[in-house]
Amino acid sequence: MKNRCFYNADGDLLIVPQQGPLKVITEFGKFLIEPLEIIVIPSGIRFTVLVDGPSRGYMLEVYGTHFELPNLGPIGANGLANPRDFETSAAWFEDLDGIEYHVIGKYQGAFFQSIQNFSPFNVVAWHGNYCPFKYDLRKFMVINTVSFDHCDPSIFTVLTAPSTQEGVAIADFVIFPPRWGVAENTFRPPYYHRNCMSEYMGLIIGSYEAKEGGFRPGGASLHSMMTPHGPDFGCFEKASNVDLKPQRVADGTMEEKCF
Amino acid sequence: MKNRCFYNADGDLLIVPQQGPLKVITEFGKFLIEPLEIIVIPSGIRFTVLVDGPSRGYMLEVYGTHFELPNLGPIGANGLANPRDFETSAAWFEDLDGIEYHVIGKYQGAFFQSIQNFSPFNVVAWHGNYCPFKYDLRKFMVINTVSFDHCDPSIFTVLTAPSTQEGVAIADFVIFPPRWGVAENTFRPPYYHRNCMSEYMGLIIGSYEAKEGGFRPGGASLHSMMTPHGPDFGCFEKASNVDLKPQRVADGTMEEKCF
Amino acid sequence: MKNRCFYNADGDLLIVPQQGPLKVITEFGKFLIEPLEIIVIPSGIRFTVLVDGPSRGYMLEVYGTHFELPNLGPIGANGLANPRDFETSAAWFEDLDGIEYHVIGKYQGAFFQSIQNFSPFNVVAWHGNYCPFKYDLRKFMVINTVSFDHCDPSIFTVLTAPSTQEGVAIADFVIFPPRWGVAENTFRPPYYHRNCMSEYMGLIIGSYEAKEGGFRPGGASLHSMMTPHGPDFGCFEKASNVDLKPQRVADGTMEEKCF
Amino acid sequence: MKNRCFYNADGDLLIVPQQGPLKVITEFGKFLIEPLEIIVIPSGIRFTVLVDGPSRGYMLEVYGTHFELPNLGPIGANGLANPRDFETSAAWFEDLDGIEYHVIGKYQGAFFQSIQNFSPFNVVAWHGNYCPFKYDLRKFMVINTVSFDHCDPSIFTVLTAPSTQEGVAIADFVIFPPRWGVAENTFRPPYYHRNCMSEYMGLIIGSYEAKEGGFRPGGASLHSMMTPHGPDFGCFEKASNVDLKPQRVADGTMEEKCF
Amino acid sequence: MKNRCFYNADGDLLIVPQQGPLKVITEFGKFLIEPLEIIVIPSGIRFTVLVDGPSRGYMLEVYGTHFELPNLGPIGANGLANPRDFETSAAWFEDLDGIEYHVIGKYQGAFFQSIQNFSPFNVVAWHGNYCPFKYDLRKFMVINTVSFDHCDPSIFTVLTAPSTQEGVAIADFVIFPPRWGVAENTFRPPYYHRNCMSEYMGLIIGSYEAKEGGFRPGGASLHSMMTPHGPDFGCFEKASNVDLKPQRVADGTMEEKCF
Amino acid sequence: MKNRCFYNADGDLLIVPQQGPLKVITEFGKFLIEPLEIIVIPSGIRFTVLVDGPSRGYMLEVYGTHFELPNLGPIGANGLANPRDFETSAAWFEDLDGIEYHVIGKYQGAFFQSIQNFSPFNVVAWHGNYCPFKYDLRKFMVINTVSFDHCDPSIFTVLTAPSTQEGVAIADFVIFPPRWGVAENTFRPPYYHRNCMSEYMGLIIGSYEAKEGGFRPGGASLHSMMTPHGPDFGCFEKASNVDLKPQRVADGTMEEKCF
Repeated sequence: MKNRCFYNADGDLLIVPQQGPLKVITEFGKFLIEPLEIIVIPSGIRFTVLVDGPSRGYMLEVYGTHFELPNLGPIGANGLANPRDFETSAAWFEDLDGIEYHVIGKYQGAFFQSIQNFSPFNVVAWHGNYCPFKYDLRKFMVINTVSFDHCDPSIFTVLTAPSTQEGVAIADFVIFPPRWGVAENTFRPPYYHRNCMSEYMGLIIGSYEAKEGGFRPGGASLHSMMTPHGPDFGCFEKASNVDLKPQRVADGTMEEKCF
Repeated sequence: MKNRCFYNADGDLLIVPQQGPLKVITEFGKFLIEPLEIIVIPSGIRFTVLVDGPSRGYMLEVYGTHFELPNLGPIGANGLANPRDFETSAAWFEDLDGIEYHVIGKYQGAFFQSIQNFSPFNVVAWHGNYCPFKYDLRKFMVINTVSFDHCDPSIFTVLTAPSTQEGVAIADFVIFPPRWGVAENTFRPPYYHRNCMSEYMGLIIGSYEAKEGGFRPGGASLHSMMTPHGPDFGCFEKASNVDLKPQRVADGTMEEKCF
Repeated sequence: MKNRCFYNADGDLLIVPQQGPLKVITEFGKFLIEPLEIIVIPSGIRFTVLVDGPSRGYMLEVYGTHFELPNLGPIGANGLANPRDFETSAAWFEDLDGIEYHVIGKYQGAFFQSIQNFSPFNVVAWHGNYCPFKYDLRKFMVINTVSFDHCDPSIFTVLTAPSTQEGVAIADFVIFPPRWGVAENTFRPPYYHRNCMSEYMGLIIGSYEAKEGGFRPGGASLHSMMTPHGPDFGCFEKASNVDLKPQRVADGTMEEKCF
Repeated sequence: MKNRCFYNADGDLLIVPQQGPLKVITEFGKFLIEPLEIIVIPSGIRFTVLVDGPSRGYMLEVYGTHFELPNLGPIGANGLANPRDFETSAAWFEDLDGIEYHVIGKYQGAFFQSIQNFSPFNVVAWHGNYCPFKYDLRKFMVINTVSFDHCDPSIFTVLTAPSTQEGVAIADFVIFPPRWGVAENTFRPPYYHRNCMSEYMGLIIGSYEAKEGGFRPGGASLHSMMTPHGPDFGCFEKASNVDLKPQRVADGTMEEKCF
Repeated sequence: MKNRCFYNADGDLLIVPQQGPLKVITEFGKFLIEPLEIIVIPSGIRFTVLVDGPSRGYMLEVYGTHFELPNLGPIGANGLANPRDFETSAAWFEDLDGIEYHVIGKYQGAFFQSIQNFSPFNVVAWHGNYCPFKYDLRKFMVINTVSFDHCDPSIFTVLTAPSTQEGVAIADFVIFPPRWGVAENTFRPPYYHRNCMSEYMGLIIGSYEAKEGGFRPGGASLHSMMTPHGPDFGCFEKASNVDLKPQRVADGTMEEKCF
Repeated sequence: MKNRCFYNADGDLLIVPQQGPLKVITEFGKFLIEPLEIIVIPSGIRFTVLVDGPSRGYMLEVYGTHFELPNLGPIGANGLANPRDFETSAAWFEDLDGIEYHVIGKYQGAFFQSIQNFSPFNVVAWHGNYCPFKYDLRKFMVINTVSFDHCDPSIFTVLTAPSTQEGVAIADFVIFPPRWGVAENTFRPPYYHRNCMSEYMGLIIGSYEAKEGGFRPGGASLHSMMTPHGPDFGCFEKASNVDLKPQRVADGTMEEKCF
């Protein structure tokens, strides 16, 4: 197989495998990313992705900003994605001789290639905080109403790529993990709404409560900003008439959305 | 009864009746504040409080800042205490003649009295946003974990009196209303902790889960900053061994804390 | 007439009728907007405009921001356009059956159409603050020098659409209403200048003092940024030689400018 | 006369002579300050004040901040006190031998004295921006309503000593110079009000419109925060019934207020 | 020679002559800019450049921001380029009759020409702070390590054109003047690196230490963002083995870089 | 020896041993702090200090803020005290039975004691970032002029305790380590100055260049704010006449100052 790596000079990449694990080699070391995990690779970092068998997933690119944890506000010092659950790699290097290594870069939307006679994975030790990192979505501490009403979906934010305007993100990466639903006097599924941001949704495993038959793992939907949408009629009927006891929501399911 | 009113030039007052309703007459109109409701009276506003029978409660004064709703962060546009549930009064006035009205002011910690021959409650109409307001604590949308772990008590914040340092409040007014507890693999009562702020707790109705026999409505506790505290041994034993099903917490109870 | 409404997913619209009233139906209710009034319709809100007879006016679209009142600085708590003079609508709805309703959207500069079998004006009640609002320009409290010299035209700002850079707006909506001119030792008409923003001017009623014959209601001028401009020679001569008594300026006139 | 100078380690001083000129010698040079002029001497700067004949005035000390021009907001780039009208001094020094110079300092509210054998006024040249400066109050460009209603007195701000809370000053220095009054349908004198800051008023020359007989040049009043006050009855009657034409206000008068 | 001037409505220009002096006539007066000096001409200002003999240099244009001095942080009140070393011009004007003056403007990337019958250089006096200014690069106070390790090249910043994101510039103008190199236990030339900004380098006089033969005055290099680069092999060998005494670096040399 | 520990509820402590090492036991683990090292113990953390033989040093307490690294500004991402050189401890605990442990707290300036029957050092593992940390002052990367002139002493800042006012610290902890002095055309010792903050200086080892005989390790000086001070006459004479070659400054010396 050809010696080849890639870097993106235009922005950071957030990769969400949906089927099949990814072996990601970076200048900072190696990562194994399995479905229900994610990896963020900052702009400019060389990396290579190896797969065994079928592989499928989602990828998000942001310009001019970096992914970070949201400011939690009244949630306090802990909650949602906790800082200590983000993992980076130990240094790893290879000392290759007499090779032809293809480095492919994306810069201002175009691809460029350079060829060098050594591996870019030649970092024997590193320190700093500009590096790739992974996160296991199952470690997300889900927070929501324990009384009545809906929280906005921003309460499911794993990572945000902020703009320079407070409260307005370039992109939010949001997940809907298994959790308890206990809201009283409330229509519990996603309500009918339109957003000030476009909304892209994928399904990693399981089934989507608001469109049970119509949305499969590996699928995706896109709702442009200001276009109204909501659950299908079956879901509406069921949720309008159900007896509201505490119940597990989305067991065995993981959706992700990017706004 | 003497014609007498009060104003506080030093700061805002937050009043939490615990026993007996308060009839509060202000320059902006009249309020009826019953237990489980609160009123905030801004600095400088003349008011009189009338009671029928025994009356008891808590009062918080803050200097150099005003109570406001916390910035919700990822909680989004709605949640906790919602803006539309705060109520102010319609104008009310009395046109009294030949009277002696005592206006008592607190200014830099001392009391002053002036006497005038008309009622201070002589405002026939008003507009603006510097006015007393009330809130019914039962309208608070309680948010907490629906997966595992504890949220910091800041997630129960009704009103905050911010300092000029972001994330540091002069005082936070926090309540612990009835709600669902669904945290898995978690010690659910308040954990053992010490605070960077002093913590004053009162009980409006019901019983306090972490010290069941030892804390009665109308009582209060004060934990100075950096002094560790937590539940009593009975609570610790019980919560360590209980089977963790969804359960109602604090039904029929309302505690309030000020940090 | 066809059942048809419009929404703009790209930004907010500020509409300034110059000739003929506009009947604006929105998801939030109905507005009657007559010349010397304006309406702002936020991004994403469905609306329809009905006219009787000839209709003409100005419209401003802004991206990535919303119109708001300027921070008044030393002007204080009141002045210019006062918050309480902005009006929104009560809810209004129609329950139509068996119809074909055309919803036209503008998204990223292109138009899209969807057809639905119910009216979009089906909101029976609402609360919140993201809604259309109107303002009567005659309620503007005009502020200016009462001693000597000119104020910058920013002192006539009704609404501003701020950028993320403090002091730099995406667009300012500015009006020149009837007022007193009392500046002493001063050339009172607009002076010769060039702007750091482009300047679009229209005339709603009356005549423009700096180009008396050359500018008619419904007309418009555009001065690109950094292009110098100023009054015509007649105006220059007259204002340079006039005896400077207090005088009414622009009586019966209303110009509007967007920067 | 003794060789003696003073410096204030605790804060800046703003001096407002009311009767008799002040000859102020500072480390940065000499100033002549006549009534209707002011001088600001920053913390730590040595200075001496010489007078001929009777001398009287007002002095304001602020802690932990410095006087600066207010951010003008929509007033724009020019107006109120213009930066170019503030004047500082050219360097001036004296080379004294065999003397005893007394340097008196105020530090944390107490006075200290040191004796040295040379003049502190020994600076032969200087550059920088931490220096004393003067301002002629007659150069103030007065701005106010030219339509109806009152502006808040903050529109008369010459200098502000800001706190770290935006919009809240430690002290504002405000003047009421001669100007045109043209407000229509308006009670033109100061209205009845209470302030969130204490208000100290002095009169430099002329007479005070709201208390014509009762307030003399060199006098002063102090209204504690949240204490209501306003014009006397004669002023109220007159202003309520007067025919509202453009008129000169406060000709030959200059009041100053500190909030 | 034709009467012709230019202005740029799109942004500010920073001009760095490398060969031959520039005589720059502006609306604010005249400048003589020799190599090792720079001039900044703000957006919208009319100017003409005259040269004698060969002339060559570099020019940088920035949009939506202005060049300013960097906030020095712990460097304190003085250092790098000091404010008092920036110079502007005295007013200068010409009173030309019966001429044809060509004013060429750049607006949104296109050129426009207008013809007028008077000189644009007709300003007889001016005040304000929006004006062209020059700076002599030899007055730059160079700061760097006096112990060990490298400082980031941002420590050589003369002027920065900030974005609205703190710590992220649209462009930094940086110079490498003669200075002392004293770092111990350190590879002293520029290390191998990649940048988050693109890097454009020119050489005004002398030779470039990291590529001694390969870079000549008047030349330029461009390293796109995230493309690694560094010294040539000769420089690497030499600097890796040299005895690290204090030594003059870049004597007789001046490079400039824009990021 | 008595089982005794201390905590300070009022603020953080920065401890600078000058003679003799300190063995510091904290809730987070054990530290050995030798002269030329420092330790910061945040408010509220229990700790005990053990010494062998004579012990002497300096201690700084700050209220209402925490020590942090200064924002480096143009110095860039690295320099001065680097984040990775700050060290904290691994967890350490003792499981003591049947003891009497005295916990002494300082709260609002007064001392309080409680007695408990277990050791406060009972933390078996921890994570978080509110913990004690140490720093070796010899790891400080000293930065200063490599051309001419002085940098402000803020360039020697190790840690700062910021106020809420940008650019104004509650306290700066500053050191003067061995370094190269290469300034040309410059008086190299500390110049004569007065500060806007009070200045406390100690000497850890070596001798102080500006007062060679008069300042000994373990000594201290305090200059109140706005009191001028500077080198003694011998230093002045010597530095005014010396031949300015590169030279080592303060070899074998370490002073520390707190502003």
